[in-house]
Amino acid sequence: MSVTRRLNVLLRKIQETVTVSDRHVLAVARQPSTDLAEPSEPRVVTDIPGPKSKQLIQELDQIQNVGAVHFFCDYDSSHGNYLADVDGNVLLDLFTQISSVPLGYNHPALINAVSKPENMSTFVNRPALAVYPPADWVSRLQNALVSVCPPGMTNVQTMACGTCSVEHGLKAIFIKYMSDQRGGKAPDKEALESCLVNKAPGSPPLSILSFNGSFHGRTMGALACSHSKWIHKLDFPVPDWPLVRFPNLKYPLEEYVAENRAEENKILEEVEDKIEEYNKKGQPVAGIVVEPVQCEGGDVFATGEFFQGLRDITNKRGLGYLMDEVQTGCGATGKFWAHEHFNLTDSPDIVTFSKKMLTGGFYKKESFKPKEGFRIFNTWVGDPSKIALLEEVVKVIKEENLLHSMKVTGDYLLSGLKLMQAKYPEILSKSRGLGTLCAIDCNNTATRDKVMANLRKKGIHTGACGETSLRFRTTLLFQNKHVDVFMERFDDVLSELSK
Amino acid sequence: MSVTRRLNVLLRKIQETVTVSDRHVLAVARQPSTDLAEPSEPRVVTDIPGPKSKQLIQELDQIQNVGAVHFFCDYDSSHGNYLADVDGNVLLDLFTQISSVPLGYNHPALINAVSKPENMSTFVNRPALAVYPPADWVSRLQNALVSVCPPGMTNVQTMACGTCSVEHGLKAIFIKYMSDQRGGKAPDKEALESCLVNKAPGSPPLSILSFNGSFHGRTMGALACSHSKWIHKLDFPVPDWPLVRFPNLKYPLEEYVAENRAEENKILEEVEDKIEEYNKKGQPVAGIVVEPVQCEGGDVFATGEFFQGLRDITNKRGLGYLMDEVQTGCGATGKFWAHEHFNLTDSPDIVTFSKKMLTGGFYKKESFKPKEGFRIFNTWVGDPSKIALLEEVVKVIKEENLLHSMKVTGDYLLSGLKLMQAKYPEILSKSRGLGTLCAIDCNNTATRDKVMANLRKKGIHTGACGETSLRFRTTLLFQNKHVDVFMERFDDVLSELSK
Repeated sequence: MSVTRRLNVLLRKIQETVTVSDRHVLAVARQPSTDLAEPSEPRVVTDIPGPKSKQLIQELDQIQNVGAVHFFCDYDSSHGNYLADVDGNVLLDLFTQISSVPLGYNHPALINAVSKPENMSTFVNRPALAVYPPADWVSRLQNALVSVCPPGMTNVQTMACGTCSVEHGLKAIFIKYMSDQRGGKAPDKEALESCLVNKAPGSPPLSILSFNGSFHGRTMGALACSHSKWIHKLDFPVPDWPLVRFPNLKYPLEEYVAENRAEENKILEEVEDKIEEYNKKGQPVAGIVVEPVQCEGGDVFATGEFFQGLRDITNKRGLGYLMDEVQTGCGATGKFWAHEHFNLTDSPDIVTFSKKMLTGGFYKKESFKPKEGFRIFNTWVGDPSKIALLEEVVKVIKEENLLHSMKVTGDYLLSGLKLMQAKYPEILSKSRGLGTLCAIDCNNTATRDKVMANLRKKGIHTGACGETSLRFRTTLLFQNKHVDVFMERFDDVLSELSK
Repeated sequence: MSVTRRLNVLLRKIQETVTVSDRHVLAVARQPSTDLAEPSEPRVVTDIPGPKSKQLIQELDQIQNVGAVHFFCDYDSSHGNYLADVDGNVLLDLFTQISSVPLGYNHPALINAVSKPENMSTFVNRPALAVYPPADWVSRLQNALVSVCPPGMTNVQTMACGTCSVEHGLKAIFIKYMSDQRGGKAPDKEALESCLVNKAPGSPPLSILSFNGSFHGRTMGALACSHSKWIHKLDFPVPDWPLVRFPNLKYPLEEYVAENRAEENKILEEVEDKIEEYNKKGQPVAGIVVEPVQCEGGDVFATGEFFQGLRDITNKRGLGYLMDEVQTGCGATGKFWAHEHFNLTDSPDIVTFSKKMLTGGFYKKESFKPKEGFRIFNTWVGDPSKIALLEEVVKVIKEENLLHSMKVTGDYLLSGLKLMQAKYPEILSKSRGLGTLCAIDCNNTATRDKVMANLRKKGIHTGACGETSLRFRTTLLFQNKHVDVFMERFDDVLSELSK
């Protein structure tokens, strides 16, 4: 039986597990994607990068380092889940600009948002948002961001990018921590003066605990919490903040519950020990920062119990808990926020976002809202034109039940990955995922890179993470038919490699 | 003689000093502003903030801290140099969203850029720019950014905001410094591994020297170099980096040349001493960061000789020299980059920009271009839709000779400020400026705030900086007629206060 046939059998099984009302929801969800003007399959007509891309790379090299450029894109000719390059190749995009495209390329709702005359001034007049907000700012914030608040949160602050969101989220934690230390009293003259020259007590030697393998961004504070690749870190001074191993679980998670529980409990103890150690050495820990899934680090999962454990520790000690959803937020996991899968008894204090959300920013609990203005601030603090686009994205997610669609398509994708793993056990392992946020490991880095290169020759564009993982970061309009297109070519590539 | 009459006499004098060809240039420069749909003067119909603003502030307070909000704006009804609020007030805007509006509100060229069908995909498909750039990226970079490169620079890197531009500019300095330390050799295994856990040698304890009163941004690295106000700094851990007084010059600069030279020479010595001190204590100084005019710190000026002195010190010691032009760049001083006024024998190594440039980013010398990709990187590294707008801004600046216009209007504005200072010496002092980037001091903070509040009641919107300064941050289409509108009301306000 061919892979596609076997997947179709699987698909029927998955659909049988879906309730009748779910099936209706799903049917509704499918319709609008018909006007995406997508091709039915990829088309590869040159090497990638092709001659036009190579020419442009050479020209760009005169202006900046081009070491990261894969190829130049023809965004006019890109549609839905298909990304076109300047050489006429059209690829099924399973990486989506490092996981940052919610509704695919050139979605009609976004084109509509830019075309609307009443939105024009939003696109040409970028304000200093925190001082001179536009008339429609409150309603835009409500539609685009408040309406999808993580449970337990009502406050939201926009920012320009993911890294700034983490940096300012950490600052909200520091402000809260020091305010608690002062018992809510106003800072004294010594604090106000010493902070101007980077000295305590105004600039206290606080620290943030983070995990091995994590990635939170590339400015100094966010970088101090990032530990996934040397290319991000080498040569940059960063504070020596506490660092703990991230749980190293066995997959599939459901088969190793007891072992994984033991591993996570051990780590939670290490977290407590590390906090004590840094408190004692005069760098008090003000908070913990963690991703719900370590993405850059290799799509490393931990369980809800672990994240609940971190919540318990931070609550017990009065520390801030920042859940970094820059890559995981906005629906790909089948819930709007990945950490909703953890069923925490009390939500994180700060939830950062960016990428698919089109704007950076963070949610915070009311108690983490600074008392004064200008504390969490910069000139732009975000961009209303991005919120105008996000408003449309959120509307489409709701109207087309895309969270549900991500769950169903994700089940199908993961089932396919498991099939492949069973068929090619000498190459593949650890197929894992939440919704369409899936990954699978290869037996070594060279094979992983070879698989990706060969997939690209067949018109499938994927992304790497960690040492040996392939990560899937699809649009929210990714459907079973796209899984089929991918899986057929994945099978071909693996079959060739196994010969 | 009324102030406006006296200003007009002055205007004639200024125009007489302009050459014939300049006068032609100026005439050309004036024409296009006629289609800005500006009112001829401000209109104030309510208190500011008015009832509608107050209502919206109350609603926004449910979502985020509103301590920084002045009033809500009606950007649809704002035109050119005039900013409308939601209560029907229309203000002459001399602060322009914290100095971030190049061509005023709703400029036809920007509306045109958003409306063009061929730009649509740029506005709806934000790419991961450093990996999948769009087909027109090189030409857009050339038109928008390379064509206005500071002297001696050809390399440019876009970023999302000013703070990120400074953080990544500092990283370019750290990379260069450590590469020099290694004699250009590749980093060894110990460096690659230690950086992942924030330890030397991979994470070296390098430092950056900055100046009292400076402002460079609000993420940890940029914040460590900022020393202007406690509200930016309190409660946040930052590294203890070397800090030197900024020159405290006497104004007008041309009357105190010798005294000012002595003061600046003293500071240059202190810079050298401070570098030695930090090198000895194991936090080697990798570079110096400075603004060409300290803006947040109170529009504090230093001379070209001082900035040349810093260039000499950094060159002699092999350190990076970052000129932060986030607030001063893009033409308001009458040159595209403020530091062009200094006639440096060798340009800075890094020049950061944002605000009026509509995109963040930094120029760098070829030797500060990292050797590997992914070193100066994040998901978006800027936004082509902002470059599409900047392309239009740069075109208008060139076609309408706005740099020249800024010089002429700036001379007129500064002459007016000097007149006012002569008329109200008990209130005003230190009128100073480059082009339209002007400032004047009041005798104390309370008076300065009172002047600003009373100006706003008369429809003039200004910004504060430092303890007692009023700063002028106009659009690039600010003209003598706008100076007249302002100056008449400034005279009224001062006259009332002097009674």
